[in-house]
Amino acid sequence: MKQDCNLPIGVFDSGIGGLTVVRQLKRVMPREDFVYLGDTARVPYGTKSPETVIRFACEDTQFLVQEGVKAVVVACNTASAWAIPTLERSFDVPVFGVILPGARAALEKSETGRIGIIGTTSTIRSQAYVKAILARDDEVRVVARACPLLVPLVEEGWVQHDVARTVLKEYLAPLLKQKIDALVLGCTHYPLLKPLIAEVVGKGVKLVDSAEACAEDVHERLGALKLLATRRRRDGVFLPFVTDEVERFNELSQRFLGFPAERAVLVTLSPWDRRRKGQHLSDFLMR
Amino acid sequence: MKQDCNLPIGVFDSGIGGLTVVRQLKRVMPREDFVYLGDTARVPYGTKSPETVIRFACEDTQFLVQEGVKAVVVACNTASAWAIPTLERSFDVPVFGVILPGARAALEKSETGRIGIIGTTSTIRSQAYVKAILARDDEVRVVARACPLLVPLVEEGWVQHDVARTVLKEYLAPLLKQKIDALVLGCTHYPLLKPLIAEVVGKGVKLVDSAEACAEDVHERLGALKLLATRRRRDGVFLPFVTDEVERFNELSQRFLGFPAERAVLVTLSPWDRRRKGQHLSDFLMR
Repeated sequence: MKQDCNLPIGVFDSGIGGLTVVRQLKRVMPREDFVYLGDTARVPYGTKSPETVIRFACEDTQFLVQEGVKAVVVACNTASAWAIPTLERSFDVPVFGVILPGARAALEKSETGRIGIIGTTSTIRSQAYVKAILARDDEVRVVARACPLLVPLVEEGWVQHDVARTVLKEYLAPLLKQKIDALVLGCTHYPLLKPLIAEVVGKGVKLVDSAEACAEDVHERLGALKLLATRRRRDGVFLPFVTDEVERFNELSQRFLGFPAERAVLVTLSPWDRRRKGQHLSDFLMR
Repeated sequence: MKQDCNLPIGVFDSGIGGLTVVRQLKRVMPREDFVYLGDTARVPYGTKSPETVIRFACEDTQFLVQEGVKAVVVACNTASAWAIPTLERSFDVPVFGVILPGARAALEKSETGRIGIIGTTSTIRSQAYVKAILARDDEVRVVARACPLLVPLVEEGWVQHDVARTVLKEYLAPLLKQKIDALVLGCTHYPLLKPLIAEVVGKGVKLVDSAEACAEDVHERLGALKLLATRRRRDGVFLPFVTDEVERFNELSQRFLGFPAERAVLVTLSPWDRRRKGQHLSDFLMR
């Protein structure tokens, strides 16, 4: 099905972390409209099984498709790691993830061919980054480590706290021992820890932000599909939906997004009881 | 509706933490059968809104009631804090929580009337412990603090780690400053941190384990309702169900439970698509 290029781009994540991806998408494509879904009622995905992550990702994508998006960006690394093939089979819109662009960026940035990956337990268990990197260059050495405490630390706001420094030192020690020269931040929350991670790994290790790489990739591929917005009359709008905790989203969104957002709208995803408590994108654009 | 006293007791929690409550229930009532539901697909509840916690608690209870339990124990502090009145209105079985017994135990243990409470963000926000304590004794001084990093630390297994010690010192400092002499461990995960918490608060502060208090309360109230099991021919069985990650449950359950458990059975709670992948309690008891 051919999409209209002036429809919004859909982005989903397990929670609010995916706003770091929206921030990069907005930077690269300021004219595009974005509909965001944060599945805050079931966050996190990074500790859950592949089957559950795939099921949640399908429900998230279905919501965005029903909102009338021209493409779907899977901002969540864990969902990108497990669900992309199922989403491509199940939906008619182009689907973009963060893993492949992150893997390519790591290969570009590494000079020694020793690459580290950090992510949630489920992302690391998928080996998605390792496979994506080795499929492009099997001479490279990849070391991966699950870092389950980093998301809670970011959500607690302890991004410059001594505890975060100690935790990072412990998590990153085995990677540094392998003399990596590039480190993939394989979770949407980790860009908020960038200054501290940079301090712990030192100057010799380049940080690879999958959000940045993903935004460039989406821009390029939407261009190739002739799906970039053509209207010029206004800047893009950003309309966030969440499955829980509108207040918490509104409190935290600016930290992740870098700009003030519209107030989020609460939605229920379950198909048997799907009530939308608020407006549609079309209502919003008509104001 | 009068229940049969030889039916099992149902226990639910957002995840595996509720097994610390089962451990205490088994200690007090070794002859009872227990059906446990851990909602591991949607864990944690402690960061979610009241509306979402209540909805999840109703779905959990419905599952246990359909399994044919004589009573439901809400092992999760957050669900106990928000959902008990709704559960009592919506279901025909007696419903027991952890908050009231924990509050009573704190009042019994405190001599100076200065009581500290720690729990998840949502439990603390509910003020359920504070209200339950003050309703019994309004001369008491209560200080509460949300400790969102403690659950992830326990799940990472860092219960004796320096990071856990530093985090606890920071969280507990304002409570110690108020010269508390009793501290309620208001989350099912916290009993696993008991040795470290005892070290940080020192000898002058008594720790109140809601799981222990809850088990005594359930025993007493089931006795009053004439619902304690009367058969004598065998020890009770324990049958666990989870909504995700059977493997992870099987790996972690012994640490929380204190004895080896049957393998968990995976279930889907959603009423529109409720497939039970495994056996019923009745099949299990017939073996």
